[in-house]
Amino acid sequence: MTHTTTIPVSLRWQGDAAGHLEVVDQTLLPARFEWRACRDVDAVIEAIKSLRVRGAPAIGIAGAYGLVVAAGEAARAGMDAAHARPHVLARAEAIATARPTAVNLRWAVERCVAALDAVAETAGPAELGAALLAEARGIHDEDRRLCTAIGRHGAAILPAGGVLTHCNTGALATGGAGTALAVITTAWDDGRRFEVFADETRPLFQGARLTAWELVERGIPVTVLCDSAAGHLLKTGRVAACIVGADRIAANGDTANKIGTYALAVLAAAHGVPFFVAAPSSTFDLTLESGDGIPIEERAAAEVTRPLGAVAAPEAAAAYNPAFDVTPARLIHGIVTEHGVIHPVTRERVAAVLGGR
Amino acid sequence: MTHTTTIPVSLRWQGDAAGHLEVVDQTLLPARFEWRACRDVDAVIEAIKSLRVRGAPAIGIAGAYGLVVAAGEAARAGMDAAHARPHVLARAEAIATARPTAVNLRWAVERCVAALDAVAETAGPAELGAALLAEARGIHDEDRRLCTAIGRHGAAILPAGGVLTHCNTGALATGGAGTALAVITTAWDDGRRFEVFADETRPLFQGARLTAWELVERGIPVTVLCDSAAGHLLKTGRVAACIVGADRIAANGDTANKIGTYALAVLAAAHGVPFFVAAPSSTFDLTLESGDGIPIEERAAAEVTRPLGAVAAPEAAAAYNPAFDVTPARLIHGIVTEHGVIHPVTRERVAAVLGGR
Repeated sequence: MTHTTTIPVSLRWQGDAAGHLEVVDQTLLPARFEWRACRDVDAVIEAIKSLRVRGAPAIGIAGAYGLVVAAGEAARAGMDAAHARPHVLARAEAIATARPTAVNLRWAVERCVAALDAVAETAGPAELGAALLAEARGIHDEDRRLCTAIGRHGAAILPAGGVLTHCNTGALATGGAGTALAVITTAWDDGRRFEVFADETRPLFQGARLTAWELVERGIPVTVLCDSAAGHLLKTGRVAACIVGADRIAANGDTANKIGTYALAVLAAAHGVPFFVAAPSSTFDLTLESGDGIPIEERAAAEVTRPLGAVAAPEAAAAYNPAFDVTPARLIHGIVTEHGVIHPVTRERVAAVLGGR
Repeated sequence: MTHTTTIPVSLRWQGDAAGHLEVVDQTLLPARFEWRACRDVDAVIEAIKSLRVRGAPAIGIAGAYGLVVAAGEAARAGMDAAHARPHVLARAEAIATARPTAVNLRWAVERCVAALDAVAETAGPAELGAALLAEARGIHDEDRRLCTAIGRHGAAILPAGGVLTHCNTGALATGGAGTALAVITTAWDDGRRFEVFADETRPLFQGARLTAWELVERGIPVTVLCDSAAGHLLKTGRVAACIVGADRIAANGDTANKIGTYALAVLAAAHGVPFFVAAPSSTFDLTLESGDGIPIEERAAAEVTRPLGAVAAPEAAAAYNPAFDVTPARLIHGIVTEHGVIHPVTRERVAAVLGGR
């Protein structure tokens, strides 16, 4: 059987400024690859909250396109200039707060709001939509370039040997090739060969469902494991490096990422295995001195007690379901950004590498 | 709605030596509580291999009753004394090797074989069965007493505050109240109140399915979490102690237990939280100098890629599925046995506490 490899994508804009956003419904993967149209802002927010589109950079891009959708709502409602702008701004705030931990979402929405500010007060919804679409496309294109740069910088420092990653940080999580997963695929595309291990990443199995799917689609062999087996795997010596993405990084390098990242970083340190984070500079929140200030989203108990819909726990059991955790900078060997690698991870190196931002 | 609390059990013998073994089919919990009859040795082995009955002590007891089932097979087949004994011995070996990691299974089977040796050579299958049933009941009764003693010794040293456990080590895993879970329930029954956290324990969710079910049945509030969230939970300071069971313990205290135990021990150490193991002395394999000699069972990929039957990974993805890992003695604060607590965990203390064995 021949298998045509494809480069996965997470979302796309359809049509002109009166068009709509389409996201790959990631809740259906790997069983089904299906596009889902988001024709109004409620649909955009629902797609973000329910993780049909997920991954900090992809959420940011979806949020940016969400403002174009808001302008389209204003146009369809026949709003004039005096009403269209406040409508878009109100919807922008709702989009920005759809999920609390990733900073890229607010960052992208604020960039689009700034683009809106540059449009004349007399502009109607169509003009606002055109300006917003240009800005959103800009953010999307830029993310593609950032992913490529992150993949390149990361591949250059990735040690020889097996690589273990957590959650999904590939094309499905971004507007391009990914962050941490781009490092892996870039090294692979360079002709390097190594074992790729993907933590399944409970509760939502993004590693097993999405990372494994992306790698299979690209023809890269992947081995999935339960998150709890990572310690034993590290002990066997088959892993030369761990690399993960990030949802928000504080000024000192403390990194919020998918639940389980912190545990993996502790385990990597215990085995002398370097632990890398890969993320665009938009993931940094320099207003936060440390990771202590990063809000941690707690999600529904059912994600834990009903994995993929099956009954895993009695009704009467409570569940603890933080969606993220914070890995202190001291456990991170390097942070791969589009500007290069921050190493060692200190406040000073963060400032120096992001200086041009 | 009133809820009658029950004390869960794992298995029982039905009838006299011509009777049969019944196990609670744990693969159906928490959705259904159902007894499954094992009327021939193949059914006993199938129940062990497929984890209908699981937990090192319960497997040992099931194995012991398995020899009675073998004698019953011989009786039903009309075997004479010359054929019945070799039949039982051959079946005993098949039972003893049904699962490789837990040592209690071989220990219990060998005890029953020794009991067989004490029966006259001229004894037919009925006499063999009667002797074997007496021995198996003895092992079962003894395990009940061991569980009670372990619960008592453990409760005495359990620090105040939240407790985190992994996998299932309760009544379902033993012939009595459990090992690690007996420590928790004994402390609770003493009137102490604290948060109980149960790792869900991928791949087979024994924590979410079985430990949570047992605690709910006993009326003890329990909070389930994904294994990957344990690191973050420990960081919050809500856990004062971790306590787990064991499948095999080497002479130096290195402990094989459910996959994820080692990672949890590393995380507990990183947070200064004491990590305890609770197990009867039959779990010790003093022929092994260290944990390096403990065989680690690798189980089917589908346990990882098809959680509770759902599709979590693409067909083409490989899976790494070690069922156990080994926690080095240096990460274990104490091992609770029926003879008392081994602390610190050193070869000398192991020998001293088990001395009377």
